Amino acid sequence: MLQTHPTPSGIDLGALASCIEACFECAFCCTACADACLAEDVVADMRFCIRQDLDCADVCVATGRILSRQTQPDWALMRWQVEACRTACQRCHDECAKHAGKHAHCKRCADNCSTCADACTRLLSAIDAVA
Amino acid sequence: MLQTHPTPSGIDLGALASCIEACFECAFCCTACADACLAEDVVADMRFCIRQDLDCADVCVATGRILSRQTQPDWALMRWQVEACRTACQRCHDECAKHAGKHAHCKRCADNCSTCADACTRLLSAIDAVA
Amino acid sequence: MLQTHPTPSGIDLGALASCIEACFECAFCCTACADACLAEDVVADMRFCIRQDLDCADVCVATGRILSRQTQPDWALMRWQVEACRTACQRCHDECAKHAGKHAHCKRCADNCSTCADACTRLLSAIDAVA
Amino acid sequence: MLQTHPTPSGIDLGALASCIEACFECAFCCTACADACLAEDVVADMRFCIRQDLDCADVCVATGRILSRQTQPDWALMRWQVEACRTACQRCHDECAKHAGKHAHCKRCADNCSTCADACTRLLSAIDAVA
Repeated sequence: MLQTHPTPSGIDLGALASCIEACFECAFCCTACADACLAEDVVADMRFCIRQDLDCADVCVATGRILSRQTQPDWALMRWQVEACRTACQRCHDECAKHAGKHAHCKRCADNCSTCADACTRLLSAIDAVA
Repeated sequence: MLQTHPTPSGIDLGALASCIEACFECAFCCTACADACLAEDVVADMRFCIRQDLDCADVCVATGRILSRQTQPDWALMRWQVEACRTACQRCHDECAKHAGKHAHCKRCADNCSTCADACTRLLSAIDAVA
Repeated sequence: MLQTHPTPSGIDLGALASCIEACFECAFCCTACADACLAEDVVADMRFCIRQDLDCADVCVATGRILSRQTQPDWALMRWQVEACRTACQRCHDECAKHAGKHAHCKRCADNCSTCADACTRLLSAIDAVA
Repeated sequence: MLQTHPTPSGIDLGALASCIEACFECAFCCTACADACLAEDVVADMRFCIRQDLDCADVCVATGRILSRQTQPDWALMRWQVEACRTACQRCHDECAKHAGKHAHCKRCADNCSTCADACTRLLSAIDAVA
C-alpha cells in the first residue's frame, strides 16, 4: 500500500510498514488485554495494567494513523509521536510482563508491546536518516 | 489473543477475529489512500474519495476496538456498529473502485474495503446466532 | 466553525453542532468515568459499566469526527453511525444511572450520555429532512 | 467530572481540565478544517494544511483520552504525549495561519490550535510539579 503513494517521503518504507503494522496490532492486543484483565477474578490487582493498556492502545492508534500518511511529513511531530509510542509500549510491556505467568493475555500483550517498541526504535533511526 | 479471555462471550471467535483484523487493516488502507489521493495531481477529482476514506477509517477504528472486547457484550450496540462499518466499507469500496484503473492505492483500498464489508456480513450472522 | 465551510451540506447546522459537541463531551465523560470506576474499591461491581463506558467513548469519537465533515456527506452511513451512537449512549446511560447514587462520576456520565442520545435523535430528524 | 475521581493523581485539576477541553475542541476544529480545505476551489494549495489538520486531530484525540484518566498516571508517557500534542498544535497553527486571511475555517482552526498548544505548555509545568 505504501509503495503506491505518488509522492513518497523518502523514508525507509520497510521500517515504516513494520511500525504501522505493529501499531495497529498492538492497539488491538492492548484493547483486548484491558478487557480480559477486567474480566479476571483479581480485577483489583489489574488496575494499573488496564490503565497502561488503554493508554497504549490510544497512542498506538494515533501513531499508526499518522505514520500511514506520506504527504509532506513533519518529521519533528513524527519523532515526538513515535517516542510517545515507544514509551507507552515499553511501560505496557513492563506491567504486562509481571502478570504473564498468570494470564496468557498479558503474555501475548507484553510480546506485542515489545515488538512495537522495537519497531518504533528502528523507525526513529529511519527518521534520523531523512529528517 | 481472543482465546485467552477468561469469560468468552460465546460468539464464533473465527468470525470475530477475522472482522477485527479486517477493521484495523482497512483503517490503515483508508488512511493511506486518503493521503495518497491528497498527493495526486488531480486532487480536485478525489474529494469524495478522500472523504469516504476518512469516514471509513474512523468507523473501522471504532468498530475494531469495540469488537476487541468480550466482557458482557451489548449485542444491539455491536450490531449497529458493525452495520455502520459494513456500510462505510461498501461505500468506500464503490468510490475507490471508480479510480482503481488510475490509482493503485485506490485499487488496494477497494479490495480491503470489500474484504472488511464481507467480514462484517459474516460477523452479523455470528451475532444473530448468539444474541 | 461549521458555518465557514465553502460547500455546506444543507443539514440544520444547529442540530449538527449540538450533536458534535455532545459526542466529544460524552467521549471525555465516558473515558473519565471508566477510569474512575476502575479506581473504585468495588471495581468488580463496575465491570459492565466500564465496558459500556469504553464502547460509548469509541463510538462517540468516531461519530463526532464523521459529523465534523460536510463535504459530500453519505447520509446512509451517517444515519447508521448516529444510530449506533444513540444506542451506545442510551445503554451507557442506563448502566451509569444504576450507580449514580453511589458514584458522582456515574451520575455525571449518565447525564452526558442522555444529552448525547437526545442530540442524536434530533440529528436523525435533521438527516431525514435532507436525505 | 475530574473532581469526582476516587483517587486523584495530585496534578493541578484546572490545568488538566483546560488541556482536555482544548484537545477535544482542537480535534473537532482540525477535522472540520481539513474537510473545509478539501472543499475549497484551491484544494491543491491546501494539501499541507489538510495533512497537518489530520495529524493534529489524531494526536489531540489520543492526548485528550489519556489525560482523562487519573488512575496511577505514568508521567513520563504523559509528558511525551503532551509534547507531541504541543508540537502538532504549533505546526498546525503555523500552517493554518498562512491561510487565515483567505479561509475563515483556517483562522478559527489556527486560534484553536494556539489555545491547545498553550494549554499543553501549562500542563507540562503542572506535570513537572508532581512527577
